[in-house]
Amino acid sequence: MPLGEFDVIARYFSRNSPRGDVLLGVGDDAALLTPAPGQALVVATDTLVEGRHFLAGTPASAIGHQALAVNLSDLAAMGAEPAWALLSLSMPQSDERWLADFADGLYALAERHGVALVGGDTVSGPLVVTVEVLGFVPPAAALRRSGASVGDLIIVSGAPGVPAAGLEELQSGRATFASQDARVRRFLRAEPRLALGRALRGFATAAMDVSDGLLGDLGKLARASSVGACIDLERLPVAPELAGYPLAEQERLVLHGGDDYELLFTLRANHFGRIAHLAEAGGCSLRCIGSMVQGEGVECRRAGARVNVAGQGYDHFAS
Amino acid sequence: MPLGEFDVIARYFSRNSPRGDVLLGVGDDAALLTPAPGQALVVATDTLVEGRHFLAGTPASAIGHQALAVNLSDLAAMGAEPAWALLSLSMPQSDERWLADFADGLYALAERHGVALVGGDTVSGPLVVTVEVLGFVPPAAALRRSGASVGDLIIVSGAPGVPAAGLEELQSGRATFASQDARVRRFLRAEPRLALGRALRGFATAAMDVSDGLLGDLGKLARASSVGACIDLERLPVAPELAGYPLAEQERLVLHGGDDYELLFTLRANHFGRIAHLAEAGGCSLRCIGSMVQGEGVECRRAGARVNVAGQGYDHFAS
Repeated sequence: MPLGEFDVIARYFSRNSPRGDVLLGVGDDAALLTPAPGQALVVATDTLVEGRHFLAGTPASAIGHQALAVNLSDLAAMGAEPAWALLSLSMPQSDERWLADFADGLYALAERHGVALVGGDTVSGPLVVTVEVLGFVPPAAALRRSGASVGDLIIVSGAPGVPAAGLEELQSGRATFASQDARVRRFLRAEPRLALGRALRGFATAAMDVSDGLLGDLGKLARASSVGACIDLERLPVAPELAGYPLAEQERLVLHGGDDYELLFTLRANHFGRIAHLAEAGGCSLRCIGSMVQGEGVECRRAGARVNVAGQGYDHFAS
Repeated sequence: MPLGEFDVIARYFSRNSPRGDVLLGVGDDAALLTPAPGQALVVATDTLVEGRHFLAGTPASAIGHQALAVNLSDLAAMGAEPAWALLSLSMPQSDERWLADFADGLYALAERHGVALVGGDTVSGPLVVTVEVLGFVPPAAALRRSGASVGDLIIVSGAPGVPAAGLEELQSGRATFASQDARVRRFLRAEPRLALGRALRGFATAAMDVSDGLLGDLGKLARASSVGACIDLERLPVAPELAGYPLAEQERLVLHGGDDYELLFTLRANHFGRIAHLAEAGGCSLRCIGSMVQGEGVECRRAGARVNVAGQGYDHFAS
């Protein structure tokens, strides 16, 4: 017999909160929380739809991870510290095995970052997962997209493009969800860059996470900052997992791959050494790929000469 | 040509915020907000799925209204003052007429209650609408489900069952969405009881909103409070819109009708006169339907004798 709605919540989504600032969690009409005094509240929400944001057949634990991770990545991009999450889960039926795996994936990531699940909604419908995350940042230290100036360096963290390569392995049938291929593991379990985001407080002049592709997202950052951007294609970071790809494929994955939680940000040039050192100490490499320039849009150069790069960021309703 | 994702947000969901506590609204990775000092943060989220929470063909403006109203009703049930909302909208395509109507319905209700839309997500997928609402309440004054004691009166606001009657008019084909029938209008545009919720601060010993049917929801309140409830069926409020129904139909609609935003709460008997007076001054009638008793569950009486009433509250995964 399928579980009822209230049994689903009681059995899978009512783990005890690890936080003292939760006055009332799952189970009443709303959650009651104690905001951190003097801090700005940071709130993000993202929705994952089966067949669009994750492939049919994706392990439930990976969906639970991703639904929270994509939101934590938004908080990382603000320099924020996450605190609480809410989950809205629409699903065709209440399959206990699926729910247990989903909850395990979500709670494992939540616990690593001290996040308490404090409420939500469970309804029957198509498989659509919405998570909201709330957190804090000192108001003046919040990282926005709009503060980059001409001359600022453009930095990207880690190894963009690897999750997109993993997705292509799965889509092509060359790998299964159970594969130990590093690209597939990264696609299913990419980690949001929360520690890096906090380290950038007071240093990054603008920041965002790379969710729709590096090139398209850099265009958004440049537009929000009312300046242009210029990047050197030779300087793009190419992860070991992409070493075997032809150059054009490497560039395509790094510039246009989505499902990434790397941070893209700008810095005054004299801050780069210090921030790179801090990041490396935390196990995160940084790469300077160019600088902000006068004008608008993103210019790509190879050997100092301007080149045209096809493709745009991901748009859900593009025809 | 259909609108792109970012055009949808810019065109329909970026109206200027009426609030000074929004540091950064729609358009960055997350919203930045200033919590009210000394208040508890109250957070609720609800999801509406086409064909489940609203009928196919429902006017978009009514869906926009309902998606926000169901959340504001949760805040009303906590005695909270709403401040901000986020919207996650999954929809098959970006139909401009639909979006404009949806946004009108949502913003009209938001503006009546001083709520700013500060962020969200727009994706392509089945029509699923999730709204999250954030607000404030003095921590000690928050209304919970769990504080009712033996002897407390059980009170319900307004006219429960009218929206459910409106839904049945639509489902049966006796009325259309354009109908001026008062039951249909109430179903499409029920108003959350925010003023009443705030008036109950410091008086209601327990409270919730009636979303899954009065009888089932009273059972939840009794269980959360670890006491029983006893109601007299003769005392149920019957709205003028239901006057023409047979008695059994009136009781069915009032006891089991969902899609209601009435408040169900308990009070010490000596507070009822004062609260009823306050509520009537605000245009909201109150009805005492029984009292909390020792034991568990909900007992229904007619002419003082116990009767069995069939039916339960709504459960999304009930077989």
